[in-house]
Amino acid sequence: MTRLWNDPAEFADEMIDGFVAANGRYVRRVTGGVVRSTVSPAGQVAVVVGGGSGHYPAFGGLVGPGLAHGAAMGNLFASPSTQQVHAVAKAADLGGGVFFSYGNYAGDVLNFDAAQERLRAEGVEAATVTVTDDVMSAPLAEKHKRRGIAGDLTVFRAAAAAAESGYDLAGVTAVAAKANERTRSFGVAFTGCQLPGADTPLFTVPKGRMAIGLGIHGEPGIDETDIPTADELAALLVSRLLEERPEGADGRVIPILNGLGSLKYEEMFVVYRRIHQLLEDAGLEVIDPHVGEFCTSFDMAGTSLTLYWLDDELERLWEHPVDTPAYRRGAVTAQQQTTAVDAAAEAVVIPESDEASHAVAQTVLAVVETIVDTIDENVDELGRLDSVAGDGDHGIGMQRGSHAALTAARSAVDQGAGARTTLEWAADGWSDKAGGTSGALWGVILTKIAEKLGDTGAPTAADVAAGVAAGAQGVTDYGKAEVGDKTLVDALVPFTATLTQSVNAGASLPDAWASAADAATRAARLTADLLPRMGRARTHGEHAIGTPDPGAISLALIATAIGTVLAEKEN
Amino acid sequence: MTRLWNDPAEFADEMIDGFVAANGRYVRRVTGGVVRSTVSPAGQVAVVVGGGSGHYPAFGGLVGPGLAHGAAMGNLFASPSTQQVHAVAKAADLGGGVFFSYGNYAGDVLNFDAAQERLRAEGVEAATVTVTDDVMSAPLAEKHKRRGIAGDLTVFRAAAAAAESGYDLAGVTAVAAKANERTRSFGVAFTGCQLPGADTPLFTVPKGRMAIGLGIHGEPGIDETDIPTADELAALLVSRLLEERPEGADGRVIPILNGLGSLKYEEMFVVYRRIHQLLEDAGLEVIDPHVGEFCTSFDMAGTSLTLYWLDDELERLWEHPVDTPAYRRGAVTAQQQTTAVDAAAEAVVIPESDEASHAVAQTVLAVVETIVDTIDENVDELGRLDSVAGDGDHGIGMQRGSHAALTAARSAVDQGAGARTTLEWAADGWSDKAGGTSGALWGVILTKIAEKLGDTGAPTAADVAAGVAAGAQGVTDYGKAEVGDKTLVDALVPFTATLTQSVNAGASLPDAWASAADAATRAARLTADLLPRMGRARTHGEHAIGTPDPGAISLALIATAIGTVLAEKEN
Repeated sequence: MTRLWNDPAEFADEMIDGFVAANGRYVRRVTGGVVRSTVSPAGQVAVVVGGGSGHYPAFGGLVGPGLAHGAAMGNLFASPSTQQVHAVAKAADLGGGVFFSYGNYAGDVLNFDAAQERLRAEGVEAATVTVTDDVMSAPLAEKHKRRGIAGDLTVFRAAAAAAESGYDLAGVTAVAAKANERTRSFGVAFTGCQLPGADTPLFTVPKGRMAIGLGIHGEPGIDETDIPTADELAALLVSRLLEERPEGADGRVIPILNGLGSLKYEEMFVVYRRIHQLLEDAGLEVIDPHVGEFCTSFDMAGTSLTLYWLDDELERLWEHPVDTPAYRRGAVTAQQQTTAVDAAAEAVVIPESDEASHAVAQTVLAVVETIVDTIDENVDELGRLDSVAGDGDHGIGMQRGSHAALTAARSAVDQGAGARTTLEWAADGWSDKAGGTSGALWGVILTKIAEKLGDTGAPTAADVAAGVAAGAQGVTDYGKAEVGDKTLVDALVPFTATLTQSVNAGASLPDAWASAADAATRAARLTADLLPRMGRARTHGEHAIGTPDPGAISLALIATAIGTVLAEKEN
Repeated sequence: MTRLWNDPAEFADEMIDGFVAANGRYVRRVTGGVVRSTVSPAGQVAVVVGGGSGHYPAFGGLVGPGLAHGAAMGNLFASPSTQQVHAVAKAADLGGGVFFSYGNYAGDVLNFDAAQERLRAEGVEAATVTVTDDVMSAPLAEKHKRRGIAGDLTVFRAAAAAAESGYDLAGVTAVAAKANERTRSFGVAFTGCQLPGADTPLFTVPKGRMAIGLGIHGEPGIDETDIPTADELAALLVSRLLEERPEGADGRVIPILNGLGSLKYEEMFVVYRRIHQLLEDAGLEVIDPHVGEFCTSFDMAGTSLTLYWLDDELERLWEHPVDTPAYRRGAVTAQQQTTAVDAAAEAVVIPESDEASHAVAQTVLAVVETIVDTIDENVDELGRLDSVAGDGDHGIGMQRGSHAALTAARSAVDQGAGARTTLEWAADGWSDKAGGTSGALWGVILTKIAEKLGDTGAPTAADVAAGVAAGAQGVTDYGKAEVGDKTLVDALVPFTATLTQSVNAGASLPDAWASAADAATRAARLTADLLPRMGRARTHGEHAIGTPDPGAISLALIATAIGTVLAEKEN
C-alpha cells in the first residue's frame, strides 16, 4: 500500500516535482511531463514515451541519452491527456519528426493518437508503435490487442538507439515494430497495490495464491494457482514464452525478469537462476540478462519474464549506451573481461600425529557428535528464544555450524589426524558454514582449545582448562562483549573460571567440567533477568528483557552434554 | 514477505547463483561471494565490501569498475564467515593491499577483523573502515558504535574512487574514514520483511504507525508515531540530520533517499520534493541527489535519508564513473545541459462572436455547471461502480474533468467568447485535466458539439443533434468501442439515435433531449446485464458482470440533468 502523500489529488504532480528535483542532470519539467535536460542533435527523430504514473521507472525514469527524448506523465494509472502528450512532443521535437511508443491501453491509444493528429496538422511528422508484449492478454492471432508491460523497455530502446544512430522516422518506426514483434512477456502476481488515499487495494489475490497473467493495473488474469516453488515458476514462465518463438528468431535472446514493486531482488535472482538454466537447456544463446525493476505497479507483488529475440540489427542497437535517471547501460570505459578462475582449494596437509593423540581425536569426535545431537534436540527452542532477542536464526545457525564441524572432524579422523587437527578442522567448518557472530565465536573457542590439545600425546586437564581460558579470552577480544551484555560471554566466563579453579584444586577433568557446566547453566538462566544494554555487542538487547540469551543457553547445553561424554570416556 | 524459494536453506546460495548468471559481464563467483569479472590494474588497492544477504544491491550489486572489487556475501541477514571474507579478499587482491568496508554490526566486525588478521599473517596489507552512519543507533559521542545503513554507498564510493585514482592503502583508508565521518543517516519503517520459509515477519509495526530509527534487521528504534504526511516526514528527517552537521562542512551536500524494499519510488519522490526544498531553505548546495534503492531489507517498507557532506576531495571522487550490476554513474559520453525553458502558453485569441451566440454561451455555461453538480452528487457511487468494473477512479476523473471544464468555460464567457469557443475551451479543459479514456472521450463529444454551435447566431435543434451525432461518431472512431462493449458508447448511441429521430420528427430541442436522455438511462442500466468482452476497448470487463458500466451511467446522468436545464431555458 502507499503510505506517504500529502493530498492524494496532488500526488502525481508532487511526485513529478520531486523526480525532477532529484534528476535535474537528466530531465527538465515541461507541460505534461519531462524532456531531456541535455542537448540532442537537431534533426534527430525524437522518441516520446508515456502513460499513467505509478510504474516508475516507466516512464519519466527512462528519459535521457540513449533512451527517450521525453515522457508524457499522466495521473496515477491514467493516460496523459491529449494536451499533455502534444505539449511533451512539441518540447521534445528536434525537427526530425516525433516517434511515439507506449503500452497498448485504450486511454493511452486515444490520447496519443489525438496528439499525433494535432502534430501532423501542425506539419510535424509523427508515427507510433504501441507495445503489445503481454502474451496472456490476447491470443497470438490478435497480438495487436495485447497489453504492453515490461516489454516497453526493448521497444523504446530499439527506437531510441535507431534514432541516435541516424535512422529517419520511417526507419525508427520499422525497427521499433520489429522489436515489438520479437518481444513477449508473461507475468504473475501475488498482491495488488493500494493507491494514495484509497481504502482498499486495487485488487487482491488470496493469501498463498498466485494469479497468472494478471495485468499491472489488476486487469483479469487467466488462472490462479497455489504459489509454486521458484523453480516451478521459472518453468511456467519459460515454457509458455517458448511456445511463441517469433518467426525468424535464431536463438539469441535477452531475458528480462521484471519486479512489479515488492517482490524483491533476492527472490528474482533465485527464480532467474532456473530461468537461465532452462533457456540454455533449450539451446538458446542468452545475452545480457536483466533482473530488476523496469516497469512497476507501485508496491504490487509480482513479476514478469520478457524474452526479446534479437537479430543482428537489434543486437547492435541494444549495445547503444544509455544514461537516464533509472536505467543506465554501457561501460563508461571499455572493460576487459578477466580469465581468472576461483583459486583451487589449497592442498590439504595432515600434520604428524601419534597413537595417543588419535585416541584423543576419537574423544573430540564424540564431543562434536554430542554437540550436534544437543543442538538438533534444542533447535526449535533456541530459535524461539532468539525470535524474542534477535532475528530467530540462532538455532538454525548453530545447527548449520555443528553439522559442518562434524563432517570436517570425521574427515580429519578418517585421514589419520591427531586431536588438534581434528578440532581445528571442526572449528573451521563450524565458523565457515554457520556465518554470523555465533559461528565466528564458536570457531574461536574451538580453535583455541585445539591449540592446547596438540597432535601428539594426550593433554592434561590443565591443558584443556588453559585451552578453554584461551578460547574465552579470544571471544572477549574479538567480540568486545562483557559479562552483562546478554551474550554467550555471560555463560562462558563463569564456565571458564569454575573449570580453571576446579582443575587447579586437583579435580579430574570430568568432575571439573561438570561443575563448570553447572555454573554456565545457572549463569545462562540469569541472563533472562539482566537489564538490556545497547551498543555494538548486542543491538537486539532491548527486546529481550525476561528472556534468556540464546547464545548463553546453547553454550550451557553444549557444556553439559560434553560433561556427560567426558564422564563416559573416563569410565 | 518472501514468496518465492525452493529450499529456504539454499536460498542465499541460489540467489548468488542467479545473480552471477544474470551479471556475468560484471562479476564472477568465488568462494565466499563475488569479485569483478573485469580486469583491474595490478598494484591497485582492492576494495572489499560485504555483509549478510537480503540487502540488494548491497553488497554483490555494488561490485564493478568504480566501486567494489569484491563482495563477501553471507547468509540471509548473517555475516559472511571469516573464511568467506578471507577467500573473497584473496581473489580480489591486486597486490596493493586490501581495504575492507562494511556496516558496523557485531558479526561482521568479528569475521572481517579475523579475515584481516589472516591476510596480514600471510603478508597482505589490509585496513578497515566500518560504516557508522545511523544517527539513531547511538549518540554522536559514541559514533563508533553506530550501525551502518544506506551510508555504505558514500564510503564505498569514496574508497573505490580513491583506489582507482591511485591512492595507496593508507590514503584510501583516510579518505574512507573522512567520508564516513561526513555521512549521517536517519530511517523510519512501516513493516518488517518475512524471510523465506519463516512463519512470521522479522518484526512488525502496528498498522498506520511508523517506527522511528528502527534498524534494517528490526533493531529497536527510539519512537513510534502515526504515519505523518510526506512533507512532515521530510521535515522530521531533515531537521534531525541538520542537527549533526559535521565539523568543517561547507554546505555542499548529497542527499540520498533510500527505499528499503516496498516503499516505492513514487512515494519517495513526493517526500524528496520537500526534502529538496528544506535543504535549499537551509542555505545548502544540493549536489547530485539520489532517490532509489541502495540498501534494502527484502520487501521491508521503510526509507532512510542520508546526507553526505562534501569537501573538494570528496566531490571530485564522487564524480568518478561507476559501472556495476545495480549502480551506474557517469555519463557514457559527456552531455551538454540545455538552456531551453518550457514553451510559454500560446497567445489566447477569442474569435469574433455576436449577441445571439453570447446568449447561447450562457446556456453552455449553465449546462457545464449542471454537469459539475451532477458529477459532484454522484462521485462516490460512480467510484463504487468503477471499483467493480475498473480501477475505481471514474468518479474522481469525471469530477476533475468537469470542474476544469467549468473553469475554462467561465473564463471564455468572461472574455466575451461565443458558444462554440466557450464549449471548445470547456472540452479542452476537461480532457486535459481528466486524463485517461473518459477524459479524452468527453473532450471529443464536447468539441464536436461545439463545432455545430458556432460563435455567431443561435443553433437550431438540428444543429445540436448533428453535433451530438458527430460527437458519437468521434467517440467510436477514437475509442474503437462498439455497443455491447460496456462503455459509454452503450448509452451514447441510443441517446444520439433518439435525439436525431425526435428532432427530425419536429420535436423541440428540450423535448427531443428528454426522450433521448430516457433512452440513454435505460441503455446504461442494461449494461449491467451484458456479457463481458475482452480486448482493447475494455480490459476490465470480466469483473463487471451484474454491474452497470460507470461511463454509461455518468453519461445518462449528465444527459438527464442537461435536459432539465434546456427545459428551464425554454420556459
